[in-house]
Amino acid sequence: MTPFEYAQSHGEAFVEELKSFLRIPSVSTDPAYREGIRRAAGMLRQRLLEAGFERAEIIPTEGHPVVYAEWMAAGEEAPTVLVYGHYDVQPPDPLELWETPPFEPTVRGDYLYARGVADDKGQLYTHLKAAEACYRTRGRPPVNLKCLFEGEEEIGSVHLEPFIREHRDLLAADVAVISDSHILRPDLPAILYGLRGLAYVEITVSGPAHDLHSGSYGGAVHNPLHALAAMIAALHDEEGRITVPGFYDKVRPLTEEEREELARIPFDREAWLKETGVPTDWGEPGYTIIERTSARPTLDLNGMWGGYTGEGAKTIIPARAHAKISMRLVPDQEPEEIARLLLDYLQAIAPPTVRVEGRVLHGAPPALIERHSPAMEAASRAYEFGFGKRPVLMREGGSIPVVTTFQQELGLQPVLMGFGLPDDGIHAPNERFYLPNFYRGIQTVLAFWEALADGKA
Amino acid sequence: MTPFEYAQSHGEAFVEELKSFLRIPSVSTDPAYREGIRRAAGMLRQRLLEAGFERAEIIPTEGHPVVYAEWMAAGEEAPTVLVYGHYDVQPPDPLELWETPPFEPTVRGDYLYARGVADDKGQLYTHLKAAEACYRTRGRPPVNLKCLFEGEEEIGSVHLEPFIREHRDLLAADVAVISDSHILRPDLPAILYGLRGLAYVEITVSGPAHDLHSGSYGGAVHNPLHALAAMIAALHDEEGRITVPGFYDKVRPLTEEEREELARIPFDREAWLKETGVPTDWGEPGYTIIERTSARPTLDLNGMWGGYTGEGAKTIIPARAHAKISMRLVPDQEPEEIARLLLDYLQAIAPPTVRVEGRVLHGAPPALIERHSPAMEAASRAYEFGFGKRPVLMREGGSIPVVTTFQQELGLQPVLMGFGLPDDGIHAPNERFYLPNFYRGIQTVLAFWEALADGKA
Repeated sequence: MTPFEYAQSHGEAFVEELKSFLRIPSVSTDPAYREGIRRAAGMLRQRLLEAGFERAEIIPTEGHPVVYAEWMAAGEEAPTVLVYGHYDVQPPDPLELWETPPFEPTVRGDYLYARGVADDKGQLYTHLKAAEACYRTRGRPPVNLKCLFEGEEEIGSVHLEPFIREHRDLLAADVAVISDSHILRPDLPAILYGLRGLAYVEITVSGPAHDLHSGSYGGAVHNPLHALAAMIAALHDEEGRITVPGFYDKVRPLTEEEREELARIPFDREAWLKETGVPTDWGEPGYTIIERTSARPTLDLNGMWGGYTGEGAKTIIPARAHAKISMRLVPDQEPEEIARLLLDYLQAIAPPTVRVEGRVLHGAPPALIERHSPAMEAASRAYEFGFGKRPVLMREGGSIPVVTTFQQELGLQPVLMGFGLPDDGIHAPNERFYLPNFYRGIQTVLAFWEALADGKA
Repeated sequence: MTPFEYAQSHGEAFVEELKSFLRIPSVSTDPAYREGIRRAAGMLRQRLLEAGFERAEIIPTEGHPVVYAEWMAAGEEAPTVLVYGHYDVQPPDPLELWETPPFEPTVRGDYLYARGVADDKGQLYTHLKAAEACYRTRGRPPVNLKCLFEGEEEIGSVHLEPFIREHRDLLAADVAVISDSHILRPDLPAILYGLRGLAYVEITVSGPAHDLHSGSYGGAVHNPLHALAAMIAALHDEEGRITVPGFYDKVRPLTEEEREELARIPFDREAWLKETGVPTDWGEPGYTIIERTSARPTLDLNGMWGGYTGEGAKTIIPARAHAKISMRLVPDQEPEEIARLLLDYLQAIAPPTVRVEGRVLHGAPPALIERHSPAMEAASRAYEFGFGKRPVLMREGGSIPVVTTFQQELGLQPVLMGFGLPDDGIHAPNERFYLPNFYRGIQTVLAFWEALADGKA
């Protein structure tokens, strides 16, 4: 029996086993679930050993522990693959919107429903079961394996970067693979090669020392909400380009070749309008919606507030107005520099009637992965085997900070081999995982390993 | 003994009596204080009878009752004066900021501290004690008196307008006087002759059907907060003029004569900057701060909100953004029309990427009182007697809706004969009333009645 056959004939058993992993409420953000984190790490370690790994340990960090495992049985000539995943999950709230309880995994139709099933326990599990399939048939996988499973992805992976920096030798590998993303449709696999970075700032505009009566002072005191609105309005031109001086200076232009590739990704504008509920799209002229949401930098207001926000009428000029502004970045923009450009520009356009303060809340660099590498080619062939179709290459609008850490600290270009679907409902009630993708994912991982071993041999 | 001498020699007794009125917590907005409202109305009726009024009754409304009293002993030849005041008070919160409890009136230095002492129980009391002084000396006042004391001024006088409309005959008078405002300084009396009106709207800008991930959709979905900020920014030009088409069309221009009079009001710009805490003033060019805050119409954001407003970073494009906008109006602007102009303009400038809804929360017409009338002249002479200086005529930025009701329903131009000071702290902790103004106020009211009686005679 081949590992492929073994995996095919054990699909139901794998699902049952995955369910027991999903029953553990490993919510990382809430200290009340600390025991769930501990139990999930423990079970993961045990399963890694059962799948054939020679070594599996729970390594403490200043936050939740990392589960590390390795299996170097393929020999020195074979490539070494570093697998990343995370065993922590989002909080399940709002509980009342779940059809079946979040930590009681339930199969309905082709889907398995549970918190964390797509993000990321089910995806992580494809690698575990691929390893088991090799162990039970050929005794070992065709590549050397190292697993790095963290417990803090949903709370910003704060302790992962120092962990990776301190364990460069332990984590040394030829290829890295991350299964924490989604493909486009069950019949349309996709590999991510670009992720946007982030620069997040909060600004406060101060006017009077305290709230003033708008009857007695209106007309002579510049309203901070007004001043802030005007400053915000000045951050884009009429067509949607960002006006912050220098903002686009370091943006690496899209090549014609890449634009042609991105244009081949199927995109249904009507479905997109329905999904978002907006009357029409908006944004930087000269770029498609796919380019604007993944390959071009943006600036968004994530929150703005000031003055009276309750029911009815209150007649004040507020003392302060606030805004949270985030910018999505693309190579080669740098988060610190972009945040600085924005804050400097806001100071420059602030009228003399108010005071402006800004602070940087968060930053993450953008990531771009070389599309034409042996590992990417191996992944494409593996998807073609597992899903029956060659994957499209695409970029994503969000951030996965570990990608940059792998690039910078380990010198690895990770392959973002996701098996989720866009409508899995991650971070939402009734999160689910499409079971055919789970089975095809295991086949794809097995094919990936073989392709890598072939390439190296 | 003259009424003037009687009042002078009974000042301390009057203050003690006022204290017992102030001990009743007649907070109109909170049903928990219903008993306080009832007791305050009862005490007021009793005191009116004790001051000589022939008739004093508590008349129910759909809200808190009106206390009405009359004393028509001056004869048919004498003018009839309608006195307005209110016996309800603002809530005392935040209690912890009061140096002495809000309903335990306390004299410190020249001030009497208590909730409602300046707004409006102490001011109302000047008329009561003037009446008593006439009663105890000459047996009757020189004019006929009608008193209309309401219990809902702090909650919008909702039931007062219908009450006045239904009691036009009862309230018929030659002159109306309202003591619910302030003069400029103890040595600088003032009579208000203009009050701004109000048009208050709330608008909601809707974009996506639900909050979206700013990583996945940023760049292709128009952020409602952004759209709202741009619309808000478009409501003023760079110099502070309101850009809503038609907004200024019905504004009655200030005459040179009125501007000269307003320019004579002492104004200390440095003190004003210190009081407000703003770096510099702002507003419509070509007008002084006094004109801009009282005689010119304005538009202010009283609140604006949308998206994430908590601690830290959340990366969403909010589904909706909201703003509360109020406009202060001057004659001959009409609240309904101005609200409509604003809402129409917002719809006109709304981009096709969002939907805009607006609703009118509140409106009040502006009021302007004829400056050159026998009653105003009588009031000026009375202030000159009571305060030793002729009063300046001034306009106020806020609204007193009853002024318009008196004008429209009773055909009366009320004299706004206030005795408070700008720093009385009405609606705030440690509200106080300057006792010399209380004593001078009674003298002024007595002099006003005499001047009116002389004029008519």
